[in-house]
Amino acid sequence: MEFLTNEKLTIVGAAGMIGSNMAQTALMMRLTPNICLYDPFGPALEGVAEELYHCAFEGANITWTTDIQEALTGAAYVVSSGGAARKAGMTREDLLKGNAQIAEEFGKNLKAYCPDVKHVVVIFNPADITGLITLIYGGLKPSQVTTLAALDSTRLRSELAKYFKISPDEIRNCRTYGGHGEQMAVFASTTLVAGKPLSELIGKEMPEGDWNDLQQRVIQGGKHIIDLRGRSSFQSPAYISICMIAAAMGGKPFTYPAGVYVHNGEFNHILMAMETEITKEGVRYKDVKGTPEEHKKLQESYEHLCKLRDEVIAMGVLPPIDQWSKLNPNLK
Amino acid sequence: MEFLTNEKLTIVGAAGMIGSNMAQTALMMRLTPNICLYDPFGPALEGVAEELYHCAFEGANITWTTDIQEALTGAAYVVSSGGAARKAGMTREDLLKGNAQIAEEFGKNLKAYCPDVKHVVVIFNPADITGLITLIYGGLKPSQVTTLAALDSTRLRSELAKYFKISPDEIRNCRTYGGHGEQMAVFASTTLVAGKPLSELIGKEMPEGDWNDLQQRVIQGGKHIIDLRGRSSFQSPAYISICMIAAAMGGKPFTYPAGVYVHNGEFNHILMAMETEITKEGVRYKDVKGTPEEHKKLQESYEHLCKLRDEVIAMGVLPPIDQWSKLNPNLK
Repeated sequence: MEFLTNEKLTIVGAAGMIGSNMAQTALMMRLTPNICLYDPFGPALEGVAEELYHCAFEGANITWTTDIQEALTGAAYVVSSGGAARKAGMTREDLLKGNAQIAEEFGKNLKAYCPDVKHVVVIFNPADITGLITLIYGGLKPSQVTTLAALDSTRLRSELAKYFKISPDEIRNCRTYGGHGEQMAVFASTTLVAGKPLSELIGKEMPEGDWNDLQQRVIQGGKHIIDLRGRSSFQSPAYISICMIAAAMGGKPFTYPAGVYVHNGEFNHILMAMETEITKEGVRYKDVKGTPEEHKKLQESYEHLCKLRDEVIAMGVLPPIDQWSKLNPNLK
Repeated sequence: MEFLTNEKLTIVGAAGMIGSNMAQTALMMRLTPNICLYDPFGPALEGVAEELYHCAFEGANITWTTDIQEALTGAAYVVSSGGAARKAGMTREDLLKGNAQIAEEFGKNLKAYCPDVKHVVVIFNPADITGLITLIYGGLKPSQVTTLAALDSTRLRSELAKYFKISPDEIRNCRTYGGHGEQMAVFASTTLVAGKPLSELIGKEMPEGDWNDLQQRVIQGGKHIIDLRGRSSFQSPAYISICMIAAAMGGKPFTYPAGVYVHNGEFNHILMAMETEITKEGVRYKDVKGTPEEHKKLQESYEHLCKLRDEVIAMGVLPPIDQWSKLNPNLK
C-alpha cells in the first residue's frame, strides 16, 4: 500500500488525546510513512508511540522525541494541538496569554528548525489567534498556515440533519465563517437542506425559536461533549485537522471552511474561518457570498476577532500591526 | 467513496476508549455506512456519537442505542469490547466471573436478536475465555467467532525491531500462539529477522538473557502502556480488532494470529490464538509448525487455558464440556 507522500509529518502535542488520534488517523489514511511525534511529556509520548507500534502499520517509520529541534528538523508538514488546557482558577485571559506564548514559541521554532516546511495546521485554542501568532513568528507565507475552523460547520450540519430527520449528506454547503462558537457567522442563504436554502426554511418549516435553539446547540457543541463524555472533544478535531493536512499534501480535497490569514480590504490583518481551498500550493481563500444580514454578522465576528488580536498586542505577545512585516516579510 | 459492504456493524461497548476508537476506525476504513453504537452508559455513548457526527464522514449512517435488542437486530458483524475493567479490591476471580457472566449474556443476546450474524469479534479479557463463552451461548459456528490475540505478536515484532535496530517490516511471520501474555507460546523458529530465523539468533546475536528480557517486555507490553500513559492500551486493540472485522467482510486479509475455537485431537474444546485465515466464509485455523520445544510451550499454554476454562465451569457460568452441544449444536 502506497503512501500519499514520503515527506515528514510532525505532530506537536502527540501525547494528548487529540495528538495521539491524529497520529493514528494519519497512519490509517496512509498520508506518509514518516511520522514524528513530539511532546514535552516523554512518558505519555512513548506510550502513544508504543500503541502505534503495536498496530503494526505496514511501512511506517514512526519516531518520537521530546526535543523540538529534532522533531521539526526536516518536517514538511506540521500539525499542532500542543496548547495548554484551561485549569481551575485560570481566567480566560490567563489561558489566552499562555497559549499565545506557546504559539509564539512554536512559530519561532518553525522558523529556526524547519524553514522549508510546506504547511502547518494549528488547532489549539483560540486557534484564530494562535494560528495568527504562529504565522507571524514562523515567517511563513499566509498560504502555509491554516487553523481548525470546520467544527462549527460540521456541528451545524449534524444538528440540521437531526432537526429535519434527514441524512447529514442531504445538508449541502453548510458553512459558518469568521470566529468560533458564539462568534460564528452562519451563512444560511447558501446552505442547502435537501435542496432548499436554509434561509427559506427559517421562520417557516423551522420556526425562529427552533433555529435559535439549534444555533445554541451548535455553539455549545464542544461543551455538550464534555458534559456527556466527561472529556473534551478529541476524535473530531483530530480527524478533521488530518483531513486538512491530507489536502495540503495533494490528497483528497477538504470541503469545509478553514481558518486562514485574511487581508482583503474588507477584513484586514486577521486570521479567521473563510471559504478556502487547500491544495499542494497551500491555502487560498475566496470571497464569501451571502445576504447583507449574513455579511453584517461576519463583520461583527471579524470585529470581535480584532479585539482579541488587539488584546494579544496589548499583552506584548504580538507587536503592533505595523511592525508585523519586520517579523514576517510575507505580511505586507 | 464506496464502502466494503452495506451490512450493519454493531459495536458493543462503544462509549469506552476502545469502542469509540473502533467506530472511528471502521468509518475511516469505510467498511460499512451502517454502524450502530451500543453501550449501557447512555450519556457517554451519545458523546461518542456526537464526535463521529462532527467528523462528517460522507455517506455514514451512525446510530446509537442503549437497548441491546435494537443494537443487535439486523447486525451482520459485531465487535465487543464491552467487558468490565478490574476495579480496586477485585480479585482476579471476581474479574473473571464478572466478565464471564457478561460474555454469557452477550452470547444469549446474539442468539436472540441476531441469529443471522456473520462474524463476531470479542476483545474483552480474558478474551480466550469470553470468546469461548460467547461462542457457546451464541449458538454460533466456530468459524463465526474470533478473539483479539494479535497484540503479543505485534508487540514481539516491535521489540525485535527495536533490539536489532531495523524496521519492523523486516521482522516477518512474527507469531505467538496459545494464551496471552505470560502464557504466550513464541514460535521463534518460524519468525524471520531480516531473513534469518529468530531461533538462530537467540544465544548468538541475541544472548539468552536479552531474549528473556525482551519476552518480558512483550508480556508486560500492556502494563507498560498503563505505566507510561496512565490509561490502558486502547488504540492498538481497537485498530487490530477492526482489521479482523474488515477481513471477515471480505476486505484486506488479516495477517496475524487470531483467537479461534480449536478442537483437533491435540487441543480440544478450547479457544486460543492459532495460525488463522479470516475471510467472508469465517475463520479457519491451520496447524502450527515449530520445534518440539515450541510445541511443548504451546501445550503448556493450552493446559493453562483448560484450567481457566474449567474454573469457569466450576463457577457455573459454563456447563461441563459434554453438555456444550445442547447449548450449541455446532459444537460436537
